[in-house]
Amino acid sequence: MPVSSRPDVAAPARPAATHAAAPTPVREGLPPRREDLRGVDPYGAPQIDVPHLLNVNENPVGPSAALAEDLGRAVREAAGGLNRYPDREFTALREDLADYLAAESGIPAPPVASVWAANGSNEIMHQLLLAYGGPGRTALGFTPHYSMYPEYARDTYTDWVVADRGPAPEFALTAEDVTAAIAAHRPDIVVLTSPNNPTGTALAPDVVSAAAQALLPTAGMLVVDEAYGEFRRDGVPSALELLPQFPNLVVTRTMSKAFALAGGRLGYLVADPAIVDSVRVVRLPYHLSAVTQAVARTALAHREELLGKVDQLRTARDALFEHLRERGHLTAPSDANFIYFVPLLHRAADRHQVWQALLERGVLIREVGPEPWMRVSVGTDEDNAAFRTALEEADPR
Amino acid sequence: MPVSSRPDVAAPARPAATHAAAPTPVREGLPPRREDLRGVDPYGAPQIDVPHLLNVNENPVGPSAALAEDLGRAVREAAGGLNRYPDREFTALREDLADYLAAESGIPAPPVASVWAANGSNEIMHQLLLAYGGPGRTALGFTPHYSMYPEYARDTYTDWVVADRGPAPEFALTAEDVTAAIAAHRPDIVVLTSPNNPTGTALAPDVVSAAAQALLPTAGMLVVDEAYGEFRRDGVPSALELLPQFPNLVVTRTMSKAFALAGGRLGYLVADPAIVDSVRVVRLPYHLSAVTQAVARTALAHREELLGKVDQLRTARDALFEHLRERGHLTAPSDANFIYFVPLLHRAADRHQVWQALLERGVLIREVGPEPWMRVSVGTDEDNAAFRTALEEADPR
Repeated sequence: MPVSSRPDVAAPARPAATHAAAPTPVREGLPPRREDLRGVDPYGAPQIDVPHLLNVNENPVGPSAALAEDLGRAVREAAGGLNRYPDREFTALREDLADYLAAESGIPAPPVASVWAANGSNEIMHQLLLAYGGPGRTALGFTPHYSMYPEYARDTYTDWVVADRGPAPEFALTAEDVTAAIAAHRPDIVVLTSPNNPTGTALAPDVVSAAAQALLPTAGMLVVDEAYGEFRRDGVPSALELLPQFPNLVVTRTMSKAFALAGGRLGYLVADPAIVDSVRVVRLPYHLSAVTQAVARTALAHREELLGKVDQLRTARDALFEHLRERGHLTAPSDANFIYFVPLLHRAADRHQVWQALLERGVLIREVGPEPWMRVSVGTDEDNAAFRTALEEADPR
Repeated sequence: MPVSSRPDVAAPARPAATHAAAPTPVREGLPPRREDLRGVDPYGAPQIDVPHLLNVNENPVGPSAALAEDLGRAVREAAGGLNRYPDREFTALREDLADYLAAESGIPAPPVASVWAANGSNEIMHQLLLAYGGPGRTALGFTPHYSMYPEYARDTYTDWVVADRGPAPEFALTAEDVTAAIAAHRPDIVVLTSPNNPTGTALAPDVVSAAAQALLPTAGMLVVDEAYGEFRRDGVPSALELLPQFPNLVVTRTMSKAFALAGGRLGYLVADPAIVDSVRVVRLPYHLSAVTQAVARTALAHREELLGKVDQLRTARDALFEHLRERGHLTAPSDANFIYFVPLLHRAADRHQVWQALLERGVLIREVGPEPWMRVSVGTDEDNAAFRTALEEADPR
């Protein structure tokens, strides 16, 4: 039972405190942080070792033995050249990403000059805000949204403003909503997330088009974060299809989720080559290691295996959604690998008590966004069964 | 002969133009970059494929077959967990780095809470400036210095100011120099590089102490960049020894050079835990991949092999220095894995012509810092011999 021995698990906003055991007295003469960072704790979902990790939308299935073998071989082969700086332009990886997107989304392969990658899509967002945000510039998001967006904005001195998504449980966003918010805030950058984290909602193409169109007169940028794009339901298109129409559109993706590569850190974007060129000005030289490039290319070469698992997760997601709905829990429609829901039992207990009760049963989910909503990642069949059982057991009815 | 077929090699400030073949017309509606980035090209030494790469201070010897094998094995073993996010605090790696520093510099192993790592020491510097720089804050360096410092400052909206190092060929820096510059500029952050890039000059401890002491009354931060620290000559101490005395001192290192791991991207710092905590606020979550952590730990476990090669490079550096001096070239004393020099023949040709003549002989070095100085990395015996021969041949006398 990790709860009793790890008091810090009760505070989900705090990271695993790896050196909390030896608090260091503050010394005279320590330089002062930026004023807007004082008293701020680092971001982080707790990293707790329990049997069922359903809190950070990881893919529950690791690489197969064959892929693990290939990854080891790729790094052994790359090792001989590790004394050299990596290919700063990682052209081969960008070609592979372009090929993959064409296959996945049915679009013509984008030119290499339109594709860019970094250490996770959070570095992609940071680079975009470094190049296009900054003091006096504003970025707009729609809440509830991914909790890191305001931190990227803060770190790059970009003002972060928000408008609300539509009411629960759909959390929808219409073309009228986005154009009205753009008219009200006149942002330099708009971030739309599709499917959205934490709600799971995908956007219809007319919403994305309307946002891009509304931003064109002021040359505002629209970033569509498709971190969970591969999990969208059949018939839901990707914003990638709109790239030829809109010079101000950026679509970001990650290999963390569909490619089960959260530990490998590979995010990427597709946009007009002029936008990629701007990002190249602010990227740290050689930001993408030769090892990361080799690992990502190897995973992309195994895409059939990995995307087969995505299909299984989509099926499991739909089944879990139906189960929750049948049991009377309030659920948001999901195009992602997680489900946003309100446990029936919240009327008898606040969501933190539900979270704690699940954790005591070895199931870690996430309290995120507006009360009393919670987010559960879709795991293996075993994870999902454990979650269902724990939720039944925790139910005081 | 790469020169005739690659016209871009004549422009060292430009990157290898991977998509220059298909220039894209600029489209209406493209978002505007930050104003201070307009017209700026990305940083980058040319990545040209010639037999003798002596331009970016890489370690010329790649990992041994045994280390390559271990790296492959480490990644194969880590692969099974790559669907999970990496350890955000990478405690095991920080412990290994602390152990290594104790062995290398003869200091007591710093506590894990004092050690931090990122994707290259450029990400370390970026994180420090994100947390401690920013609008209205000033960082001070001493020229000639590493060309990226002003870019880190620009990206983080920190003012970058400079003072001069002492005259050639020593490019020395005294305690009086640094305290006078600090008094003149009142910087929030001072960056000292020891050994310095591109001059090769190491700093005496009294210079570092004087800078740290002069910054204490205003709680200014002193960053000592020891990227080339392991190549310092016998008897030259590391600034690590001063950490217990100064709460405002940060020492940065990299595995790119001594560990022959430029392609692996691992930079790190040692400082008061309060400084590490501030960096943790601005670091992108999970910035250090599980693969990078595994690769770095494996290389650290092979440190005897790798540091043995450092000793060979130091010997080769001293021999090359003597050779250049005996031939009448002007040379700066070097504690690094490169030598800063003025070719005798520069009186007959500008340095770019010397650079070009060497390149035509398959030897790539770097034009950097004040005219007519040039920098050559210490390579393998074969590289160094090729450089010496090419320099003789290029000499018009």
